[in-house]
This record gives sequence, structure tokens and C-alpha cells, in this order.
Amino acid sequence: MEAVEKRLQEQIRFILEIDRLKRIYRQNFLVDGSRRENDAEHSWSLAVMALVLKEYGPEGLDLTKVLQMVLLHDLVEIDAGDTFCYDPEAAADKAEREERAAERIFALLPPDQERELKGLWIEFEQGESREAKFAICLDRLQPLLNNYHTSGGTWRVHDVSSAQVKKRVRAIAEISPTLGAYALGLVEKAVQRGILRK
Amino acid sequence: MEAVEKRLQEQIRFILEIDRLKRIYRQNFLVDGSRRENDAEHSWSLAVMALVLKEYGPEGLDLTKVLQMVLLHDLVEIDAGDTFCYDPEAAADKAEREERAAERIFALLPPDQERELKGLWIEFEQGESREAKFAICLDRLQPLLNNYHTSGGTWRVHDVSSAQVKKRVRAIAEISPTLGAYALGLVEKAVQRGILRK
Repeated sequence: MEAVEKRLQEQIRFILEIDRLKRIYRQNFLVDGSRRENDAEHSWSLAVMALVLKEYGPEGLDLTKVLQMVLLHDLVEIDAGDTFCYDPEAAADKAEREERAAERIFALLPPDQERELKGLWIEFEQGESREAKFAICLDRLQPLLNNYHTSGGTWRVHDVSSAQVKKRVRAIAEISPTLGAYALGLVEKAVQRGILRK
Repeated sequence: MEAVEKRLQEQIRFILEIDRLKRIYRQNFLVDGSRRENDAEHSWSLAVMALVLKEYGPEGLDLTKVLQMVLLHDLVEIDAGDTFCYDPEAAADKAEREERAAERIFALLPPDQERELKGLWIEFEQGESREAKFAICLDRLQPLLNNYHTSGGTWRVHDVSSAQVKKRVRAIAEISPTLGAYALGLVEKAVQRGILRK
């Protein structure tokens, strides 16, 4: 087999494998409340949000890097499953499960791309670069929008309090004062509307 | 209302509206054959494919532009619906239906972003720039992979012939000889396996 053919076969194998992300369902619903959202749909939403909301990110933001991060950030859930952010028990071994998943999934790629794409996932997880911080900010904002527009969504299902949500909103405010203020406003309106417990 | 607040409200309104793309189902199945794929999932797949397969695109390719195009290319189907590519009757008024949809959907954004994002959609539809051609190439390759790996998928459901598929594969070969040869190889293997009519 020629080198280019082997390389392309590995890349296609990766593309076929990650199609499974479409079967990993999250806790939150679609905006119309009709069913739960899956990880591929969620990743697409974050990527469009990155395009539309980039002006609220930090100066000098590398948009391509943010797009790559949000597109790839949940691939590990193919093996590790979706860990609900308000479940402390599931959170305990989350990092370990996801690290193992990243090892397996990115290794399907040719070595140079394994390093590159896994590197982006690690950077996102570390949350230190401005791109990682902005990607995390969007990852926090999107379920907030979904829950607000589905009459409380998973907040009500799992009896989440406004203090718990506010704690997660801090990562938004830290990187974007405008989006942070907007998110905090939504939390307060949600409490007023009685769809989020005080 | 302050200007920045009005602007952000419009952007969020757009983000909430396009969540409906997750309810627009395509003809093709997921790779595991379990159900039909929706447009948001399809758009996510194309974006990851752009990252992984960019080396087969033309020299000087602007990856960010390709990513933006594939993320946005199907938004018009929220109003216009998915038009099956082998249905000549539905194709007759496709352009008109999609043009009307683009008018409505992108107009939800602030005017500068309406121009920018609608401009990317028009560029994709015109299919002349290298980024548009590469985006179209991925848009043709992805359902081919899905159909091949679901024992013929929509080819069998709609009794599509290899000549029809080969005609669509030409857009892949035109922009990427490597991906074109790979796609043509799949078509031939599909005929040999009896999952695509000669």
C-alpha cells in the first residue's frame, strides 16, 4: 500500500469512528425542548457560537484554534460518556476515563495529526490559553441558553440551584465581561421566572 | 437598551433560531445505520473532515473560511428543507427556496454579520473560490462514506446508479485528485459488493 493511501485510510478510519459522537446524548435538551441533544450537535452549536460571538473574546483570539477545540472537545465522550456537570460522583474519575479515551481515539490518526489534535484537546482541558478559555466560556454558555429556553430544562430535572449555576457562570465572566453579565442576567431572570431554584 | 445589549440580543436570537437545524433530517444514515442523520450533525462532520483532510485541498487554502462555510452551508434548510440530490423535481425550485431562507435567517444577525455570514453562504453556493470548492468536495465525500458503510444506504433506498454517483464524485476529483481517486475507488467497490447498481 502506498504511503499516501495508508495515511488516507487512517484518516478515514478516524472520521468513521468519531461518527459515534452522534449517539452520545447530553443532559440538556434542544432549544425546542423536543429531545435531548447529542454531542455532535452540541459541538456544532459551539462552533457557530464562536463565529458569531468572537468579538466578545479576548484580543488577539485565534478563531481557527477555538473552532478546532470546540469541534473536538467532546470526542473523548465516545468512550467516557457524557459526565453531568452537577454530578460530583461521576466527576471523580472523569479525567482518568477521558484521558484513556483520548489515547485510543486520537491514535487512529497518522502520528503527526494524533499529536496535533490531541494537543488541542489537552490545551482545552488545561484551560489556560485564551483560546481554551473562550472555548470553555462557550461550552458553559450554550447549556445555560438551552436550559433557560426550555423552562429550566436540566436545572429542574436535577434540582440544580442558582448558586451552582452561578459558580459555572464564573468561567464565562472571567474571559468575557459582556457574555458573563449576560449569563448572570439569565440566571437571575430564571430565578424570577421560577424555573431555577434560588 | 444599550447598543451592545441590542447587538448581543440579536446574535443570541440567531443562535437560538438555528438550533432548528438539529431537526432537519437528511436522506443518509449515521455510519452505524441506526437512524437518519440531521443537518447539524452533518455540518459538524464536514468541519472535522476539513481539519483532518485539509492537506488534500488546494495550495493556499484558508481553513477558517472552509470551516465557516461548512458550518453554515445548510442553515437555509431550516426553511427550505433537505433537497435529495438525486431528485430532479425537488431541485427545480431549490435555489429560489434557499435564497428566500437565507434572506430571513441571516437577517436575524446585526447587519455587519448578516453581510459577512450570508456572503460566505453565497460564496459556497457559487462554488468558484478554492474554499467553496473544497467545502463542496467534503459535502460530496461525506454521504458517499456513509452510504458505503451502511450497505448502500440511500443508494439502495432510492435505487441510485453508479453513473449518478460518479457524476457527483467529479466535484471531488476536480479539487482534489487524491480524494477523487479514493471516492471513485469506493464507488467501484460498492458496485462489486452489490450495494450500488451498475
